[in-house]
Amino acid sequence: ALAKLLDPIHPADIADLLEQVDEDTRIRLVQLYGMEFDGEILSELNEGIRESIIAALHPEVLADAVRDLESDDVVDLIEDLDDPQRDIILDALAATDRAAVEQSLAYPEESAGRLMQRELVAAPEHWDVGHVIDHMRAHDDLPDQFYHVILVDPRMRPTGYVTLGKIMASPRTAKLTEIMEDSFRTIPVHQDEAEVAYAFNQYHLISAPVVDEDDRLVGVITIDDAMIILDEELEEDILRLAGVGETSLTDRVRDTVRARLPWLGVNLVTAIIASLVIAIFEDVIASFVALAVLMPIVASMGGNAGTQSLTVAVRAIATKDLTSSNLWRVIRREAAVGLINGAVFALVMGLVGVVWFGTWMLAGVIAAAMVINLLVAGLSGVLVPVLLERLKVDPALASGTFVTTVTDVVGFFAFLGLAGIVLL
Amino acid sequence: ALAKLLDPIHPADIADLLEQVDEDTRIRLVQLYGMEFDGEILSELNEGIRESIIAALHPEVLADAVRDLESDDVVDLIEDLDDPQRDIILDALAATDRAAVEQSLAYPEESAGRLMQRELVAAPEHWDVGHVIDHMRAHDDLPDQFYHVILVDPRMRPTGYVTLGKIMASPRTAKLTEIMEDSFRTIPVHQDEAEVAYAFNQYHLISAPVVDEDDRLVGVITIDDAMIILDEELEEDILRLAGVGETSLTDRVRDTVRARLPWLGVNLVTAIIASLVIAIFEDVIASFVALAVLMPIVASMGGNAGTQSLTVAVRAIATKDLTSSNLWRVIRREAAVGLINGAVFALVMGLVGVVWFGTWMLAGVIAAAMVINLLVAGLSGVLVPVLLERLKVDPALASGTFVTTVTDVVGFFAFLGLAGIVLL
Ligand SMILES: [Mg+2]
Ligand SMILES: [Mg+2]
Ligand SMILES: [Mg+2]
Ligand SMILES: [Mg+2]
Ligand SMILES: [Mg+2]
Ligand SMILES: [Mg+2]
Ligand SMILES: [Mg+2]
Ligand SMILES: [Mg+2]
Ligand SMILES: [Mg+2]
Ligand SMILES: [Mg+2]
Ligand SMILES: [Mg+2]
Ligand SMILES: [Mg+2]
Ligand SMILES: [Mg+2]
Repeated sequence: ALAKLLDPIHPADIADLLEQVDEDTRIRLVQLYGMEFDGEILSELNEGIRESIIAALHPEVLADAVRDLESDDVVDLIEDLDDPQRDIILDALAATDRAAVEQSLAYPEESAGRLMQRELVAAPEHWDVGHVIDHMRAHDDLPDQFYHVILVDPRMRPTGYVTLGKIMASPRTAKLTEIMEDSFRTIPVHQDEAEVAYAFNQYHLISAPVVDEDDRLVGVITIDDAMIILDEELEEDILRLAGVGETSLTDRVRDTVRARLPWLGVNLVTAIIASLVIAIFEDVIASFVALAVLMPIVASMGGNAGTQSLTVAVRAIATKDLTSSNLWRVIRREAAVGLINGAVFALVMGLVGVVWFGTWMLAGVIAAAMVINLLVAGLSGVLVPVLLERLKVDPALASGTFVTTVTDVVGFFAFLGLAGIVLL
Repeated sequence: ALAKLLDPIHPADIADLLEQVDEDTRIRLVQLYGMEFDGEILSELNEGIRESIIAALHPEVLADAVRDLESDDVVDLIEDLDDPQRDIILDALAATDRAAVEQSLAYPEESAGRLMQRELVAAPEHWDVGHVIDHMRAHDDLPDQFYHVILVDPRMRPTGYVTLGKIMASPRTAKLTEIMEDSFRTIPVHQDEAEVAYAFNQYHLISAPVVDEDDRLVGVITIDDAMIILDEELEEDILRLAGVGETSLTDRVRDTVRARLPWLGVNLVTAIIASLVIAIFEDVIASFVALAVLMPIVASMGGNAGTQSLTVAVRAIATKDLTSSNLWRVIRREAAVGLINGAVFALVMGLVGVVWFGTWMLAGVIAAAMVINLLVAGLSGVLVPVLLERLKVDPALASGTFVTTVTDVVGFFAFLGLAGIVLL
C-alpha cells in the first residue's frame, strides 16, 4: 500500500524524506514497504542512514532491491558497507554483474574506476552507421544510460566516439569515423574523482570512456555521476573552510562532536598563541585600559580580510585559475587591495578613536595597526594556500587556521606594540 | 599560424590561458588569431575579460565566431554585454537564430528561459520508432546536443520522453509511448536557475523540456549547462560565506576593493559593538589585566563553533535537507554538541588558566564562559540562517555577521561579567 502511495515520488525525494524523520519512523516506513523497496532509494541515502536501513531490510528484499541497479550504483552503494552487508548484496547479483562490481571495487577509493559503469556500447572503428544500428537492435541488454558509441581499435583502445544523435541523423552507409566528435578525451582509471569532475565541467563532457594503464577501454563515466562528485567536492571545500570535517545533518551527536572538536582544538591553540602576544603587553594595557577595548577590532578586521582573500585563493587553486604564471600578479593585487582597504578603515577607526576616547595618539595607533594588519591579511591570504598546495596539504582544510593566526598575532602585536612605543 | 598551433587545445583551456596572462599579451594573442578566432573561447571566458576581448575583435571576426554557437551559448555570451556589443552579435546571426536568442533574452535573468536551448527534437506521442527515425534522417539540422526525443500532444505540451538509446534498441514498429521513460519532469520557463540545477542534481536528469505558462514546450535544458550553474551557485555560497561579493581572480584592484569593502565595513560595526561590551567592564579589566589576555580566547572559540554550525545549516538549507520537519531535532543536536564541546574546552582552558595564572577563580570563570558561549554558538548557528531564510535573505550572505556578533557579545559579556561578579 505504501509502495503504491509513494510510487509517483522520485527515489531521491523518498530518501530525503527518510533522512528527515526520526529513526523509529524511518525503520517503520521501510518495513511498511515490504517486498517492494526500491534499490534506488538506497543509492540516494546518506551513508549513515543507509547502513541502518540495510540492516533493517530482510536480506531477500535487499537482494531484490539491488538487482535492478546499474553496476556503478551498486559500487557506490556497497563501497562503504561492512563486509557482512557487502556480501549479502554481492551474493544477490548475477555472476557477470558481480564480477563487474568486484572489478570496480579493486580500484582505489575515489578513483575513476569506482565511478565508472561497466555497461557501455563500443564498435570497431571501421564500422558504418548501418552496422552499429543493426548491432544495437540485436542486443536486448543495452545500458540504461548511454549517449555515445565508443570507437575502439582491434586492441580495444578507444579512438573516438560518436553521439547517438549523429548516428540517427546519418545515412546507413556513413562511416563512423566520418561522423565522430572532433573533441575526444579518455579518463585514466586511476584518476582521482575530483579531477574527473573537473574534466566534465571544464570540457562539458556528457560521457567519457575510462581506460586502463594499457589504454584499453574498461568502462564509461556519465555526467550525472560526475555532477554528484562536483557537488560533493564543493561541499567538502565549504565544510573544510569552516573547520568542519565530513558531516551531514543526519549524524548523531557523537559523530558531530567528533567532526568538530579537532578543529576547535586547533583554534584553541592559535587563540592561546594570540593571548601570549597580548600577555607581552600586559603593562601597556594596565596603563591604558582603552587598549583592551579596542584591540579585538584590529584582530577581527584582519581575520575577516584574511578569510576573504584566502577563500578567493583556495577557490582559484581548486579551479586551476591560480597558477605560477599569474601568482605574482595576484599577490600584487592582494597587497594593493589590502593597502586600500586598510587605509579606508584606518581613517574610519581613527575618527571613531578620536571621538570615543578623545586622543589623537590612540587614533593614530589603531589606524597604523589597521593598515599593517590588512596588508598582512591580503598577503597571507594568498601565500598560505599556495604554500599548502605545494606541500600537498589541502588548502581548504588548513588555510583558515594559519591565516587567522597570522592576522591575530600581527594585529595584536602591531596595535599593542605601537601603543607601547607611542603612549608610554 | 597561432590558430593551427592552438587547435588541439580545448577552447576552455585557451580561455583559461587568456585569463592568466596580462592584458597586453591577451589582446596581442587574440589579434594573432586573425580570422580564425573560435566563438567557443568567448563562451568560456570570464565576464570582465570577455568584454575587453570582444571590444578588441574585428566586428567581422566576432560575427563569424558567434555564428557557430548554439542559441543558449549565444544568450549566455551576450546577456551581460552592453547594447552596442550585443547588437553587433545579434546582427551577425541568421534571422531564425536571432529570433530564438531574442526570445530567450525576454525571460528574466537567471531563469530557465535564459538557460535553455531552442534546438530540440520533438515528436507527436502517437508516433512509432520508425516514424521518428525517418523524421530525424530527413532533417539535416538536428541539434548538436540532444539525448531525448520529447513526446508532445497536439497542443505542443510535452507528455514524456524517450532516450535515443531506447529508440536505437527498439524495433521500428514499437510505439514511442511504450518505450518512454517512466520518470519525467518539465521545467517552468520562469524557474530560477538555482532550482533548475537542484532538479538536475537531485533527479539525475540528462536533459529536461522547458515549458511556458500554458505548459507548451519552448526549449530544452541539458545537464552540461545545469552543471555549470550548480558549480556557480556553490561558488557563490563559498564566497558569500567568506564575505566576498561576486569576484574572480581576474578582477582589477578597483573591483576587488568594491567587492570586499562593504563586508569589512559590516564587520567593523559588529567589532565595535563587541568593543562596547568590553568597555562596560573597563574597571574589571583595570583590576585584573589577565582578563584582557584571556578574553579573546572565549570569543574566538565561540566564533569558530558558530561558523561550524552555521555553515552546516546554510548548506542543509541550500540542499533542502533542513526543513520544518527536522528543525527541532537539529536544534537539539546543536545544543548537545555545543554543551559537549563547551565542557571539553572548559576543562582544557580551566587547566590552562590555573597553570598560567595560578588562580582557580579565573579558571572557573573562563570555563563557565566557554560552556555558555559554545552553547549559544551552536544555537545561533542554526537559528540565524533559518530565520534569514524565512525572511527571504540569502543565509549564505548574512549569517556569518550575525552569528559572530552574537558569539562575540555573549563571549565577552559572559567572561567579563562573570569575572566582575567572582573576582571583584
Ligand atoms: Mg538527498
Ligand atoms: Mg546515484
Ligand atoms: Mg544513476
Ligand atoms: Mg562513492
Ligand atoms: Mg574527493
Ligand atoms: Mg551512473
Ligand atoms: Mg578538495
Ligand atoms: Mg575557465
Ligand atoms: Mg557550452
Ligand atoms: Mg548566464
Ligand atoms: Mg543565481
Ligand atoms: Mg548548451
Ligand atoms: Mg544561492
